[in-house]
Amino acid sequence: MNEIVAIDWRGVAPLPRDEFEAAIRAVGAERYHNKHEFHKLLHGGKLNKDQVAAWALNRYCYQEAVPRKDAAFMSRVHDRELRREWIHRIHDHDGLGEEGGGIERWLVLTDALGFSRDYVTSRRGALPATKFAVEAYVRFVVEQPLVVAVASSLTELFAPSIHRERIVGMLESYDFVDDQVMAYFKRRLTQAPRDSEFALGYVLDNAKTRAEQEACVGAVRFKCDVLWAQLDALHHAYVTPGLIPPGAWRPGEANV
Amino acid sequence: MNEIVAIDWRGVAPLPRDEFEAAIRAVGAERYHNKHEFHKLLHGGKLNKDQVAAWALNRYCYQEAVPRKDAAFMSRVHDRELRREWIHRIHDHDGLGEEGGGIERWLVLTDALGFSRDYVTSRRGALPATKFAVEAYVRFVVEQPLVVAVASSLTELFAPSIHRERIVGMLESYDFVDDQVMAYFKRRLTQAPRDSEFALGYVLDNAKTRAEQEACVGAVRFKCDVLWAQLDALHHAYVTPGLIPPGAWRPGEANV
Repeated sequence: MNEIVAIDWRGVAPLPRDEFEAAIRAVGAERYHNKHEFHKLLHGGKLNKDQVAAWALNRYCYQEAVPRKDAAFMSRVHDRELRREWIHRIHDHDGLGEEGGGIERWLVLTDALGFSRDYVTSRRGALPATKFAVEAYVRFVVEQPLVVAVASSLTELFAPSIHRERIVGMLESYDFVDDQVMAYFKRRLTQAPRDSEFALGYVLDNAKTRAEQEACVGAVRFKCDVLWAQLDALHHAYVTPGLIPPGAWRPGEANV
Repeated sequence: MNEIVAIDWRGVAPLPRDEFEAAIRAVGAERYHNKHEFHKLLHGGKLNKDQVAAWALNRYCYQEAVPRKDAAFMSRVHDRELRREWIHRIHDHDGLGEEGGGIERWLVLTDALGFSRDYVTSRRGALPATKFAVEAYVRFVVEQPLVVAVASSLTELFAPSIHRERIVGMLESYDFVDDQVMAYFKRRLTQAPRDSEFALGYVLDNAKTRAEQEACVGAVRFKCDVLWAQLDALHHAYVTPGLIPPGAWRPGEANV
């Protein structure tokens, strides 16, 4: 699937709608991060509390990047109706008014794992590779054509099953995890399908040429890479070989 | 006030809070666009319907840029509380749920002036100088330090008086303008002061050095330039000398 030689799609007929959708979904089957070793360990209850903590601390950076990514996308959209649809994603993460939002729920998880909120939100203990990956995602939606930027959100198509696995696996396996702590993932079970349904329809409608379709499939691959790279970095630092880079959080570290 | 030679503010003590605020407000007294000849004509009832139409058509580009500007700003903000405050600006312009928002109210004005919504929202009849100016504003909030980006919104401090003048002047002077058409400005009378109060407090609190303070005052000047340049372009094209550039809307043009 990794083409070494760039293919010139000019003059090639676009895929029928169902084949285009299947090509998008095939990316998930091939490389969504539920296939990563670290996720298997996480869901299977094979990690210790420090390793789960490292995951939650780093994944905060991703959570925190998502509403900025959505705002960056909106900053390019001249179609008011599209902005009015998209802004719900920011509400879901940042909350709106009384509703605290997904990031607040994520901080309940990092609370339970023993981190102060200042330490988590400062991102200073996160792995540099985590921050590079999530900022690459923010840049992607700034730089790519709009339909390709929308396509990069389509990993949400694959999210509900991972969230269900995670809720069950983590509640069963870890005594430091309870329903309250898993609230983030429970909420995403309803939010992600609504968002991904809209985004999928948008991509299927608006990627007109084969080249645009391929760029959209490539965007889903890119986004899987963003997710996968975060788990690679976690696995390397906190599981095998367990080499934590300078400046990143070390289990037992004071003042976190 | 235009310094030819850049001043090195390093080592210079910051202005006391009240003097810093006074320096910001002084920019409005000096160069806010209520002093522009075009505005005097607009509010004084001295323009014909075509000239008011050209103004509304072009000013749409500014209205439409503002929520993208606010989203671009949010895309850079790691502080969730600041994003949660700032998102209200997008709601005000784009609307939220049942509420149509400020751009919808602006389109009521362009409806009354005889334009189709497709023509207005395509921006194809707007003056290139208008589009360049408003996009410069979007870029400014992407590229400048956050506190300077916030400061560029502070022309809102000067807006309520111009809106009040405009409501009275336009209702009195033009038979194609009624309360419904002026709804945008009426709403801004309450929205702008709330936003500018927050932004002013943020700037006064967060511009710590004299160099940062001067950059913030410069941002207000920049924003006044963005507004002024739009009226210069309108005046040149549709008043004196009345030279309309290629591609821009011409009174009497069909299919608009």
